[in-house]
Amino acid sequence: MILTVTLNTALDITYRVPVLEPHATHRVTEVIERPGGKGVNVARVLAALGHEVTVTGFTGGATGRTVQDGLTAVPHLVDALVPVEGPTRRTIALVDDRTGDTTQLNEPGPTITPAEWSAFQEAYEDLLASASAVALCGSLPPGVPVGAYAGLVRAARAAAVPVLLDTSGEPLRRGVAARPDLVKPNADELAELTGSHEPLRATQDTRRRGARAVVASLGTEGLLAVTPEGRWRATPPARLHGNPTGAGDSAVAGLLSALTEQLPWPDRLSRAVALSAATVLSRVAGEFDRRTYEELVEQVTVTQEASAA
Amino acid sequence: MILTVTLNTALDITYRVPVLEPHATHRVTEVIERPGGKGVNVARVLAALGHEVTVTGFTGGATGRTVQDGLTAVPHLVDALVPVEGPTRRTIALVDDRTGDTTQLNEPGPTITPAEWSAFQEAYEDLLASASAVALCGSLPPGVPVGAYAGLVRAARAAAVPVLLDTSGEPLRRGVAARPDLVKPNADELAELTGSHEPLRATQDTRRRGARAVVASLGTEGLLAVTPEGRWRATPPARLHGNPTGAGDSAVAGLLSALTEQLPWPDRLSRAVALSAATVLSRVAGEFDRRTYEELVEQVTVTQEASAA
Repeated sequence: MILTVTLNTALDITYRVPVLEPHATHRVTEVIERPGGKGVNVARVLAALGHEVTVTGFTGGATGRTVQDGLTAVPHLVDALVPVEGPTRRTIALVDDRTGDTTQLNEPGPTITPAEWSAFQEAYEDLLASASAVALCGSLPPGVPVGAYAGLVRAARAAAVPVLLDTSGEPLRRGVAARPDLVKPNADELAELTGSHEPLRATQDTRRRGARAVVASLGTEGLLAVTPEGRWRATPPARLHGNPTGAGDSAVAGLLSALTEQLPWPDRLSRAVALSAATVLSRVAGEFDRRTYEELVEQVTVTQEASAA
Repeated sequence: MILTVTLNTALDITYRVPVLEPHATHRVTEVIERPGGKGVNVARVLAALGHEVTVTGFTGGATGRTVQDGLTAVPHLVDALVPVEGPTRRTIALVDDRTGDTTQLNEPGPTITPAEWSAFQEAYEDLLASASAVALCGSLPPGVPVGAYAGLVRAARAAAVPVLLDTSGEPLRRGVAARPDLVKPNADELAELTGSHEPLRATQDTRRRGARAVVASLGTEGLLAVTPEGRWRATPPARLHGNPTGAGDSAVAGLLSALTEQLPWPDRLSRAVALSAATVLSRVAGEFDRRTYEELVEQVTVTQEASAA
């Protein structure tokens, strides 16, 4: 199975309101709830592709139970979340029907105690024993040490399980130094990590900092991959209009999916770009349409670049 | 015991954000949850005054379980909520720390099926048998007939239990026609019901429409009571600055509390005004400070007006 780690799981709630007016009272016209957090989103896409996937991270309180109920409903997905005392956070995406714009409200998440963090690390090492790959995704909840991902990367490498890291800020900086097989930063995360706003330079620098391969997601320009096997750019067939929510998580799922099938880089990148594009084009935020994906995957342009990475 | 009915119970959530900016992403800095809905708020104040109080209405889903867990923690309060399939709604009060202003987001609530509505009516009639008074409070969830309060008022009168109605719009109009002992509209609700923006005229008209007594809450001007026993105005000692959330519910609790103690109207109104004022002055929205209440209750001015109601 593929293992995804979401230390800051969430109950993602979407509210629609006719018009958002600060300081007014609004009647919410539509409420949608689903399990969230980056690793959970990655797992859902992997499961939809037919992979056996296990979700770990933390769960607590009534919101945690709702998240777990939601996961139980997903075929091919196993819930291995570790119970904690504090309640799982909610995130609220508040969609203004007039403009289509979204205002986001994110709870901080429960404070994880040292004992809970230890319990998680044990559960994680047990799960690694049967994992073909692992993705470490998203922000850290309060109480988890900032070097958490570095430790989880090292444990995966010690278990010889390919490890992908998708986070930001100091957890990314420390995680990269622990030599993960793959990181998937976006342009902002690259700039924050390296100080460079030039994507190729920043991507190359990220490899020098420890990542074996780097796939940078550059929005509408697609992906830039700098790897020991070479350098590629992969771009979607046309400029996409839609909701980018979850597009990065779908790209991570595509990379992992193709990695566990031992496909070469161009196929990995095609899959990641097509899944990402199918997510942007989906009517429901964070979902993807299987047929759209299958059409798009044939239309992605992957170009190898001349200079070695 | 005193019975309070909240057909549209809620999990009230308060979020603090440094500044609310539409279309931006916000990290919520503080999350407070508590059981809500007008009748639940009334019950909490009654319980704090030492009354035995029973809460009924509907509860469903994970949010309903959280509401019930919160009620269990309140001394003198018994949870007699009726289970339904749909989840109890959330309300979100989004407080902007810079301005102190609140943006309110209210979920619509679960759709109640005809079978669930019948089950509630049976439970309600059973509870009436041991009630010394009943308060019917707040909006109706989807699926509950618009004449619901009229039926509940009639059932209370048939059981010879004094009944207070605190709602708005068409449910208020129909409920008033069923001849409740007391209604407690605010200025907006009075105007909507009667078409008159002149409080005394609108209050008198509300009596003519069926209410035995009417206590109109007129914000900073206090209460106007038009009753078969006479007409009074009750005003707080000074202009109050604070958060009016829950002030109306505290006034309802004061009226019910004094009614069950068979106090005369001036004492009922003093208690209602002082509880309402103590709620406005409280640091925590919807709570009240017992000592502030005890000081204020001595300082409320109650004036009987000349003309008979």
